[in-house]
Amino acid sequence: MVEYILATRNRRVPRSFIREILKVAGDPDIISFAGGLPNASLFPVRELRKAVNDLFDSRGADPLQYAASEGFGPLREWVCQRYKKRFGLEYSPENVLITTGSQQALDLAGKVFLEDGRSAVMERPGYLGAIQAFSLFTDRIIQVPMEDDGFDLNLFEGALRRGSAGVVYLISNFQNPSGASYSLEKREAVARICEEYGVPLLEDDPYGELRFSGEDLRPVTSFMESGGVLLGTFSKIGVPGFRIGWMTAESEILDSLIVVKQAADLHTSAFDQQVAWQYLENEDIDKHIQDVRELYGRHCDLMISLIEEHFPAQVRYTRPDGGMFLWITLPDGCSSLELFEAAVRQKVAFVPGTPFHADGGGENTMRLNFSNADERSIEEGIRRLGKCIKEYLGK
Amino acid sequence: MVEYILATRNRRVPRSFIREILKVAGDPDIISFAGGLPNASLFPVRELRKAVNDLFDSRGADPLQYAASEGFGPLREWVCQRYKKRFGLEYSPENVLITTGSQQALDLAGKVFLEDGRSAVMERPGYLGAIQAFSLFTDRIIQVPMEDDGFDLNLFEGALRRGSAGVVYLISNFQNPSGASYSLEKREAVARICEEYGVPLLEDDPYGELRFSGEDLRPVTSFMESGGVLLGTFSKIGVPGFRIGWMTAESEILDSLIVVKQAADLHTSAFDQQVAWQYLENEDIDKHIQDVRELYGRHCDLMISLIEEHFPAQVRYTRPDGGMFLWITLPDGCSSLELFEAAVRQKVAFVPGTPFHADGGGENTMRLNFSNADERSIEEGIRRLGKCIKEYLGK
Repeated sequence: MVEYILATRNRRVPRSFIREILKVAGDPDIISFAGGLPNASLFPVRELRKAVNDLFDSRGADPLQYAASEGFGPLREWVCQRYKKRFGLEYSPENVLITTGSQQALDLAGKVFLEDGRSAVMERPGYLGAIQAFSLFTDRIIQVPMEDDGFDLNLFEGALRRGSAGVVYLISNFQNPSGASYSLEKREAVARICEEYGVPLLEDDPYGELRFSGEDLRPVTSFMESGGVLLGTFSKIGVPGFRIGWMTAESEILDSLIVVKQAADLHTSAFDQQVAWQYLENEDIDKHIQDVRELYGRHCDLMISLIEEHFPAQVRYTRPDGGMFLWITLPDGCSSLELFEAAVRQKVAFVPGTPFHADGGGENTMRLNFSNADERSIEEGIRRLGKCIKEYLGK
Repeated sequence: MVEYILATRNRRVPRSFIREILKVAGDPDIISFAGGLPNASLFPVRELRKAVNDLFDSRGADPLQYAASEGFGPLREWVCQRYKKRFGLEYSPENVLITTGSQQALDLAGKVFLEDGRSAVMERPGYLGAIQAFSLFTDRIIQVPMEDDGFDLNLFEGALRRGSAGVVYLISNFQNPSGASYSLEKREAVARICEEYGVPLLEDDPYGELRFSGEDLRPVTSFMESGGVLLGTFSKIGVPGFRIGWMTAESEILDSLIVVKQAADLHTSAFDQQVAWQYLENEDIDKHIQDVRELYGRHCDLMISLIEEHFPAQVRYTRPDGGMFLWITLPDGCSSLELFEAAVRQKVAFVPGTPFHADGGGENTMRLNFSNADERSIEEGIRRLGKCIKEYLGK
């Protein structure tokens, strides 16, 4: 067997760990809080079917042909209208690029902003998909501790002061994995610091529409004059199977992003873009989002009340105002990986915290998803998990 | 205005040249042979609509959820069955990765096989999308002259003998842009040389099903024991708007490709994959492909007979057995870019040959697409183009 020489970058991408975990958690007998799936019971199946048929009636073969790399014009226009409606922000469709899910936005930004020696500065714990995407383009990922209200600002400014930062990446609302959101003060501060050091800010916001308590805050990038790149996605307000996301940026940056977008996949599915647009035209998306918020809010409340009932008092947890995840911290010295093995034997699963830490650490942390399981499974699963934790701590 | 520091790779990707040309050629008054679009009049609109509705009936919300990075199992199985039916080749679904168009396969292979100093060895002239994708990952693209029947073998072997080749890339049938195909002898020789020097071979075959004369030959990679990666696409046998392609490779290579696939966009649209599969289940794809072959064959014959009638005798052209393109060579010293400007004034467009040459050259060459325009437009367009060439040569 010939051994082919692969590029160095292959050796530094986090590989199979989380895929292995999700594989274990995919066992239908297991109650899984491990994945990051939206709840399919709310998918607008009938409405999307109508949108497809409307589209075939009105546009025929057009959604089936090659299309522009930038994306479908009316969908780019919808993105702008949405930010205007939610925050009064003015974007122009020319500043919107449709991506193949917001994961692709991380790939494109990595290509444009990163190279070996130019770091990606992000949260600790941070989104695993971003660590994976960025580590293909730089040998330097710097994680700044995530507090209850965003980056630790001293350490964040320190990371930029060192120079050589290529991009800052953050999730402003209901962060994956911690569930925490940036306060208004930290939004302003992060925006100011990025501008001061001339580092572009990649603001990911997949969960912002999924708020079930508190008040929406403006995107961090909206506090910047330039250098802000804001990401969004159809995956959490509509369906993830379409792989439709977007990024907004000023022209100079967007031009570079479009060039690498074209090289990546020419364009995002023209069919899915047009179906998504037709669906958004036909339906009241706010009403649908309200249904999603209510369900996820109920699930989150239920999970927290069960945690309070079944987990030992020394276990800490976050209390998110939206999104899909909460974050558990076991007492110092505990290993969530060991707990994972015990939990799987009891037919319940979660994601241990280490993969969200690019350079190790977080051994005593874990992520729980509350969007996907039904209420009975949440009750039974948290009960089982509480029992496992008690046994583990009682060792 | 802050100037952000972008990664070095941004400076070496071929940028707007061809996009500008396609923009000019997009003027509805212009008869364009510039793009590379399949003919939408043959798109199976009714059949795809039926497939979508069948799918909603039978699988409900399933095609709308997140899915596996590897792709939809039954579609991977179909890919294997297709190679078995066409060539008697045995692939296992575990060795198939579904990609977001075959353009994405180039991005993934670039990530896995290339880095600065490790060259991509490809044809000259070569596919522009590959030059774009590879130049993001290596500073070294080596183009080996393309003859009527494939690589110039001496120069090809010389390129590998130099060492440091990360991957060989070729289009085995009806190459873009030249229209030329590899002979059986060159298939065997290229396979042997790749194995001898231990360099993986990325064989792109978007047009192989579009043969309108001659006999199908086995893929180049089928002559290799290991290191062969074969690409295919739904874009030319079905529709390109879905962005569905695939790559087959041995497990060691495929594992690395799946890791970078996951970082690129998590997975290809689950919806489009399932719709494509349902369509392939419902319909007789061979009958549809036969219709496409016949139309493109008629268009190609027509274009060649018009070239013979209207172009000066010193203009050379290829005579492809399939695909979508033919390749024109003007006398030495001519500039197809100058001709392009004159042609656009006469409302006819093509792609000048220089962008298919990564390091310059090909000034007197140009690519004509015969799949997209209708027969009346081909007649009128080639007449106009002949007039322009005569005027240009008569200067």
